[in-house]
Amino acid sequence: MQIIEDVGEMRRWSETERCAGRRIVFVPTMGFLHDGHLSLVREGKKRGDRLVVSIFVNPAQFGPNEDFAAYPRDPGRDRELLEKEKVDLLFSPSADAMYPKNSQAYVEVEQLSRPLCGPFRPGHFRGVATVVTKLLNIVRPHAALFGEKDYQQLQVVRRLVRDLNLDVEIVGHPTVREKDGLAMSSRNSYLNGEERNAALSLYRSLQKAESLVRQGQRESRRIVEVAEAEIGKEPLARVEYIEVCDPESLEPVEIVGERALLALAVRIGKTRLIDNIILQVEK
Amino acid sequence: MQIIEDVGEMRRWSETERCAGRRIVFVPTMGFLHDGHLSLVREGKKRGDRLVVSIFVNPAQFGPNEDFAAYPRDPGRDRELLEKEKVDLLFSPSADAMYPKNSQAYVEVEQLSRPLCGPFRPGHFRGVATVVTKLLNIVRPHAALFGEKDYQQLQVVRRLVRDLNLDVEIVGHPTVREKDGLAMSSRNSYLNGEERNAALSLYRSLQKAESLVRQGQRESRRIVEVAEAEIGKEPLARVEYIEVCDPESLEPVEIVGERALLALAVRIGKTRLIDNIILQVEK
Repeated sequence: MQIIEDVGEMRRWSETERCAGRRIVFVPTMGFLHDGHLSLVREGKKRGDRLVVSIFVNPAQFGPNEDFAAYPRDPGRDRELLEKEKVDLLFSPSADAMYPKNSQAYVEVEQLSRPLCGPFRPGHFRGVATVVTKLLNIVRPHAALFGEKDYQQLQVVRRLVRDLNLDVEIVGHPTVREKDGLAMSSRNSYLNGEERNAALSLYRSLQKAESLVRQGQRESRRIVEVAEAEIGKEPLARVEYIEVCDPESLEPVEIVGERALLALAVRIGKTRLIDNIILQVEK
Repeated sequence: MQIIEDVGEMRRWSETERCAGRRIVFVPTMGFLHDGHLSLVREGKKRGDRLVVSIFVNPAQFGPNEDFAAYPRDPGRDRELLEKEKVDLLFSPSADAMYPKNSQAYVEVEQLSRPLCGPFRPGHFRGVATVVTKLLNIVRPHAALFGEKDYQQLQVVRRLVRDLNLDVEIVGHPTVREKDGLAMSSRNSYLNGEERNAALSLYRSLQKAESLVRQGQRESRRIVEVAEAEIGKEPLARVEYIEVCDPESLEPVEIVGERALLALAVRIGKTRLIDNIILQVEK
């Protein structure tokens, strides 16, 4: 596996591969890789000729009181895992290379950044949109893969690619879960045993809501109530939001039509976790 | 001269040229071409193998009370002029192609958009930064040329290219003036005879200020006073701003060091004109 840290070198690699007619697939990550990432990597391998993974913990998407400094890092282990998956190239730039002094250009995706996590993480999606734009401009892949666990992020990325005319296909990939249902996340490493157990309430509440919809319930208010009650049973859990919304625009919906997104953010102790499912109504 | 209106077709043309090893130079314009534009075109011809000119009157950079609808257009004449200059490709997309329904991603260049024209044209530089990002992503040139008449715009573009890691060289090109000193601008076509005459006060005031600096004056306040007094002689002229600032950061300077930008915006009747010079102090 080749490792590139320099932006210019990354560009040249990409231009050479593109002009040789090879299809480049890209999986951007913040490292501390888990099976969710590796599932993106395996899917990426199938979708092109060259697979690039980036590892960059992006300071711009963390708020001043968030966990940037504490965010888990293990570059040695990450490299080994990527070697094993036969990734062609690891791009791991420094923060100085990505944000030179006096950086002041930002990408904003307005409406899609506002609901759900928006109010709880001011500036987060601006940071995400900016770094994804930068990475896509540097790596210049034909396709890029993002996990559906970060559903709002995926929608923000799809929109910036369309609206800023970036020439890349964005592929969403299903959330990977532990055997007991917990959505994989680097932040799960913050949880102690008791918290880990309380965190299971997230997926349990999504499943309860889903089965309610399967039984014919269409009112978002009722669906949210059931999900909230399930999480309410866990003293360690504190709901930030649980919402039913349109899966494209992310605007709230009162009645579930054919498809709706049920998304939530919950604090387990100090750890903030998110999860979501798509509610499908069979006709 | 080839003409492309479709975004996808433009991309494919560019990818083919790049992979054939040819250097693409790009001159983005809003059309109604004058000798200022043609001077960019001629410079562009020297700097690469293929010259692309775009014509797109960008709605996003006009405020609600500005002259988008009235902005002068003459596509037939523009095409003839570009043919004569042996431009390789004219890219002239429709507004729908550039801004599909529900467009909501924008590029902001924060500090550089704030001074000078910033307060007088809210949203203008966001519109410029966004459309330039889009055009550069579509055309994918090796170099792009911008006139120094729109000095703040040039700095905004330089910064977004650096900060968003766009792989393109930005080249500034000196302002082209009429024989009597008026900076060329498509908006000069709005001026009647009397206003045309009043508009000469812009360059005259810049020259007065420059000669003051040549005589040893270094205080921005004094320099601005002299420039203002010159424009004050014209009853049809109303100053929006006259400022001395750092040519990179655009922050105001009190004392002219080695180099400073003297920039102004003046209304002549209903027409808003801008101009600037670099004040150089010889050591």
